[in-house]
Amino acid sequence: MDKIIVDAMGGDNAPQAIVEGAISALNSDKNAYIILAGIQSEIEKVLATLSYDKSRLEIFDCPDVIGMNDSPTEALKRKQSSLIAAYWRLKKEDDICALVTAGSTGATIVGGQLILGRIRGIKRPALCPAIPNSRGQVTLLCDCGANAECKPVMLCQFAVLASAYAKVGFNIKNPKVGLLSNGTEEHKGDPLHQETYKYLSKMEGINFAGNIEGRDIMLSECDVVVSDGFSGNIALKSMEGCGKLVLGVMKKEFSATLSSKIGYLFMRKAIKKMRAQLDFEKFGGALLLGLKKVVVKSHGSSKSSTIAASIANALSIYRGGLVPAVENRLEGVDWNSLIPESENGAVEG
Amino acid sequence: MDKIIVDAMGGDNAPQAIVEGAISALNSDKNAYIILAGIQSEIEKVLATLSYDKSRLEIFDCPDVIGMNDSPTEALKRKQSSLIAAYWRLKKEDDICALVTAGSTGATIVGGQLILGRIRGIKRPALCPAIPNSRGQVTLLCDCGANAECKPVMLCQFAVLASAYAKVGFNIKNPKVGLLSNGTEEHKGDPLHQETYKYLSKMEGINFAGNIEGRDIMLSECDVVVSDGFSGNIALKSMEGCGKLVLGVMKKEFSATLSSKIGYLFMRKAIKKMRAQLDFEKFGGALLLGLKKVVVKSHGSSKSSTIAASIANALSIYRGGLVPAVENRLEGVDWNSLIPESENGAVEG
Repeated sequence: MDKIIVDAMGGDNAPQAIVEGAISALNSDKNAYIILAGIQSEIEKVLATLSYDKSRLEIFDCPDVIGMNDSPTEALKRKQSSLIAAYWRLKKEDDICALVTAGSTGATIVGGQLILGRIRGIKRPALCPAIPNSRGQVTLLCDCGANAECKPVMLCQFAVLASAYAKVGFNIKNPKVGLLSNGTEEHKGDPLHQETYKYLSKMEGINFAGNIEGRDIMLSECDVVVSDGFSGNIALKSMEGCGKLVLGVMKKEFSATLSSKIGYLFMRKAIKKMRAQLDFEKFGGALLLGLKKVVVKSHGSSKSSTIAASIANALSIYRGGLVPAVENRLEGVDWNSLIPESENGAVEG
Repeated sequence: MDKIIVDAMGGDNAPQAIVEGAISALNSDKNAYIILAGIQSEIEKVLATLSYDKSRLEIFDCPDVIGMNDSPTEALKRKQSSLIAAYWRLKKEDDICALVTAGSTGATIVGGQLILGRIRGIKRPALCPAIPNSRGQVTLLCDCGANAECKPVMLCQFAVLASAYAKVGFNIKNPKVGLLSNGTEEHKGDPLHQETYKYLSKMEGINFAGNIEGRDIMLSECDVVVSDGFSGNIALKSMEGCGKLVLGVMKKEFSATLSSKIGYLFMRKAIKKMRAQLDFEKFGGALLLGLKKVVVKSHGSSKSSTIAASIANALSIYRGGLVPAVENRLEGVDWNSLIPESENGAVEG
């Protein structure tokens, strides 16, 4: 039985969507055991409407809730809140393998770093979503917002982490890694990216394909795109915004005239397939890579289907052995010989 | 008569698409006079197939062509190349009002800075495309790649330049300005963006709306989005990539089955309208703002319709008085009192 803890109070649609998503995941995975962390009475209210195997579900009563306006460090002190209490159990109990939350991104990152802890050798955890691409597969974009400021060593580690995720999560044998920049030529970008290019070119075990541009995240052959968290976040959200605009315009135009309404009837299946291929949340949320256990951060606006996908993905990543794979990969790596000491620390903060 | 010079040899489809686009613009604007800079014999070959008012067209024979692999500084020395020769005429001849090129971005920027020259007080020129948004209007994203490294004063000036473009080009009285960051809260971003936020908040004549995220470029109420050239380039290309993927998937799915093919017949108009609303090149290329005259940089892959749109937009911006408007706006602005000296220089380079 694989035990996973879910923050039932995080996100805009909590606890309703979270509990529903968790039960959906529980029902489709007979080896899953789910702990729902949150206000017991509220969770029970939602559970009463659902049918599931009660022997594989546990409620972990956490009377406190982190507010939208609480700072991450403030949130960390709220030990009876669902997210923070879940992190503490995840850290202490060996048999809990993963955490899923749709709560505050800041609190998730800070809790991951300060409660759960990083894999030995990793400077900073990084957010890594799976983005649909033109090959009908996914591109892993790492980092997407955990680190607004980066040093070259961090970007090199993001390449290691996301390559391991590509192997374990998507069965890609030798993932192709691109560095997100403002042009494909080697000299492009600011000093951070120019330096990182040099180190990535030399790194053993990284299938480095050079610089790529924003459009290549969805259109190129790269399985992994390495980015600082500032521009990675902007890239991800720019693509999401464009996707949302397209779907909005489509909805409007496709119901604007009688002719297009008739056309829609014939096209329903094609449009459904198209929407599925462009779904940014097919695999749930972003992995928070680099921590001692699997943590998935889902979108604050996640619906139950996204939560179910996040739980399924977290379990699959755990079963694939992501954390041990990264630990093995890092064993014996001498970052100081690869990258000069001045470039070798995480950013202060 | 408004004289404009067009680089007939720049871009993947030159000179064919450029000459065709120029003639299309010439035919629809009776007050336009176009100088086609490039290899005379090649231009004449294309012109022979077209009909137009010969009294408003001039060929400027430039026997040299800048290669795709020439560095910008190398390109600058090629004085007989169409782009560089066009820049020299633009600088020297008062009655030439604008330049349009689909050639090398680097050479266009360097030529603009070193041959044509910047508006007094402006530290760096910036690339500014008009991006379709959910309001059915455009968002001006500035800078999109001219400056991979920025200082706060540059971002503040991009706000001034793009606000003037919004007024002159799109008749927006009090353009709303957002700062592109990895979150909407004031403290988000790296030190560059945190500092810029403070200065933009204090700037008179800038309608500053605070930080915005990548998705807000296409979905928010902002008319202008200010960005460093590195993340602005990534945002633009990420949106382009997503748009291209969507159209590709649509094309495939909409012709995959008999049912969807029938549906397409009913939906043709709706799909055409949708494509038009999502067209990134409706207004041609990006303006290279901050120079002493109007310069438009079109996509290297521009078709004739994009070139025609770029020429029309350049003439409209010239007639709207963009450069004098910026000069007036900057007169008497004391950047040193607004921004401490340490933050007040352009980046070395």
